[in-house]
Amino acid sequence: MAHQLEISDIYDAARVLKDVVRHPRLISVSKLNPEAEIYLKPENLQYTGSFKLRGAYYKISCLTDEEKSRGVIACSAGNHAQGVAFGATSNGIKSLICLPAGAPISKVEATKALGAEVCLVPGVYDDAYQRAIELQHEHGYTMIHPFDDLRVIAGQGTIALEIIEEMPDVEAVIVPIGGGGLIAGMAFALKQLNPAIKVYGVQASGAPSMVESLHEGTRVHLDAVSTIADGIAVKEPGVNTFELCRQYVDEIVTVSDDEIAAAILALIEQQKLVAEGAGAVAVAAAMFNKVPIKGKKTVCLVSGGNIDVTSLNRVITRGLVKSGRNTSLSIDLSDRPGQLANVCSIIGKSGANIISVVHQRNVSQLPINSCVLRIELETRNLEHIAELKERLADAGYIIVN
Amino acid sequence: MAHQLEISDIYDAARVLKDVVRHPRLISVSKLNPEAEIYLKPENLQYTGSFKLRGAYYKISCLTDEEKSRGVIACSAGNHAQGVAFGATSNGIKSLICLPAGAPISKVEATKALGAEVCLVPGVYDDAYQRAIELQHEHGYTMIHPFDDLRVIAGQGTIALEIIEEMPDVEAVIVPIGGGGLIAGMAFALKQLNPAIKVYGVQASGAPSMVESLHEGTRVHLDAVSTIADGIAVKEPGVNTFELCRQYVDEIVTVSDDEIAAAILALIEQQKLVAEGAGAVAVAAAMFNKVPIKGKKTVCLVSGGNIDVTSLNRVITRGLVKSGRNTSLSIDLSDRPGQLANVCSIIGKSGANIISVVHQRNVSQLPINSCVLRIELETRNLEHIAELKERLADAGYIIVN
Repeated sequence: MAHQLEISDIYDAARVLKDVVRHPRLISVSKLNPEAEIYLKPENLQYTGSFKLRGAYYKISCLTDEEKSRGVIACSAGNHAQGVAFGATSNGIKSLICLPAGAPISKVEATKALGAEVCLVPGVYDDAYQRAIELQHEHGYTMIHPFDDLRVIAGQGTIALEIIEEMPDVEAVIVPIGGGGLIAGMAFALKQLNPAIKVYGVQASGAPSMVESLHEGTRVHLDAVSTIADGIAVKEPGVNTFELCRQYVDEIVTVSDDEIAAAILALIEQQKLVAEGAGAVAVAAAMFNKVPIKGKKTVCLVSGGNIDVTSLNRVITRGLVKSGRNTSLSIDLSDRPGQLANVCSIIGKSGANIISVVHQRNVSQLPINSCVLRIELETRNLEHIAELKERLADAGYIIVN
Repeated sequence: MAHQLEISDIYDAARVLKDVVRHPRLISVSKLNPEAEIYLKPENLQYTGSFKLRGAYYKISCLTDEEKSRGVIACSAGNHAQGVAFGATSNGIKSLICLPAGAPISKVEATKALGAEVCLVPGVYDDAYQRAIELQHEHGYTMIHPFDDLRVIAGQGTIALEIIEEMPDVEAVIVPIGGGGLIAGMAFALKQLNPAIKVYGVQASGAPSMVESLHEGTRVHLDAVSTIADGIAVKEPGVNTFELCRQYVDEIVTVSDDEIAAAILALIEQQKLVAEGAGAVAVAAAMFNKVPIKGKKTVCLVSGGNIDVTSLNRVITRGLVKSGRNTSLSIDLSDRPGQLANVCSIIGKSGANIISVVHQRNVSQLPINSCVLRIELETRNLEHIAELKERLADAGYIIVN
């Protein structure tokens, strides 16, 4: 491989990956943005739940026999760990993954199940990374970088070939950006094959390292990142990925955590697909008109689906509250018998469903003979909540908030 | 069409549906049951989120021009409504769907969005059904039965052709049963093409109408049904579907609501797919070894994904509690300053995450100077909970439950 990426590298990666990875077909989606013709490339349905195994497998397959015999190492608490484990085990070689000790058990177990040895390092990601470097030097492992390696980038670029093969007249492709490996490979391949295809990148507004780097004209290191899209919460782009983005990406936009949550919920409700935060940012960009795709045949890359169900539960709950299907009411009650029954009866008649009740006396801000009732409810929509509040007010109850 | 189903009917349906429906490809899944080679046929990724449009579209396409000009009617609060709406609108004819007035807003809106006219009937399903019959007679609409119609059955049977085409050496197929239209068409087609393929049906244990009917040798009408798999909560099988099941289905088993919930959660976590309760029963049967598929190449039909996110949230929450990733502790505190801080500190150090706190004095069962603290937590697993409880006990706190 030359020091520069060439289209033949992407084709070589595709040849190597042909019978190794899944090739999820495009899914047409009409509702996400009625002004564009949108398709999803569902890499969340890929083995390991994300696209990461493409680059990792290709990189590992290119190692010399001598390098292979020593094994590979990586540092990741997420999809890259599983990609490397899958790539190494399928290539019949050893892999060691360093993770910070607080990493979710589910990710640790998934990585082990794919055949990797796991090294839990006390501290945060940076500590695990330092330990991985030490172990690499001690044992001569090959470090597999999560994004800034031309073979890893070539592997991710194979997704672009699949899109063009299935839909030769695609006009725009929207791709999530963390470190930039995925978009670097895809934008390079797309522009080589058809420079007219627009390539848009999306970052979380809480982790806009590539956006700021392109704006500054040089790689920016963010001090802190914060987003529900943990898979793309990267502080600094790579040297190669930065250069490839500068050359081949048309525009990079950001989406907020609320927009990402709305996209996750839309994918669940409309497409029956589970995406993680990072996996949903391209869809969020299309839903909330962040990119100029009006009238265009557009592919949104859904890069992964490895969302912890605890987080998924929070996203759904937030979506339910926002759409008026779940609400909490605090009601100021006079402390006389029958008040709770009466409120519950009004709620029942309205068709709302009680989830939890806290009935509490002696709240110091309230008159001495009153108390506060806090009720969590399942409701139909925002109008339903307004109607219920009106009924309660008509019956003389004061809703505190 | 003759009075009996023929394999040519299934082929004719496949011809009609070829460019109308999606043909979701099989997905191999290794983790669901390590003793079998399991694949999913993901009809939850079908347009409208379920297989129902296959039968409805085919039935509608077979109507005479005169029948088409009068339009069709159906009674359903679920997938059949959307299937008929899709089938009618794509055939360019009018559809009217009767629903009970309490049907979830989301289903009403989805049905309207597919071009149907919706008639909300006060009362329950049976009232809506009666109203549909009245309207049918008044206006000469054709009623589209949700399962007991040979053309509807032939449409659903096309799924079997797709499975055999993609995997000619399939050995067993597991199919959900409500009224029986899906399994009737599939079992008929599978057995016609290869009698060696085993066909297993699955019902919810709270709605075992086909199981009991086959056991009794005659169609049984259940007085009540209760299951989270509302899509297959059917009180009585059809005349045709009963007969076809008797002839072609090898065995029918039941799964509990807890098993269904576990299957839904496994599909989300392992496959990134959202299934509704009815859509997950075949997977539940495979996961919990209800059918003899050891060593067999087996396809589980995931029939639909239209689960209300409120229900999905409940299923996930239940799954989280069962796997120790969410828990509630009630702790008996002496009512002295600093106790809440101390407990929270122990919890924080253990790595658990506090979701909610209720701190309550004056509980009559407790000593006068004590109070109860109820804390909801995110935890890692059951061992983590046990460890946390031990730490609290070591610090002298009494866990009430």
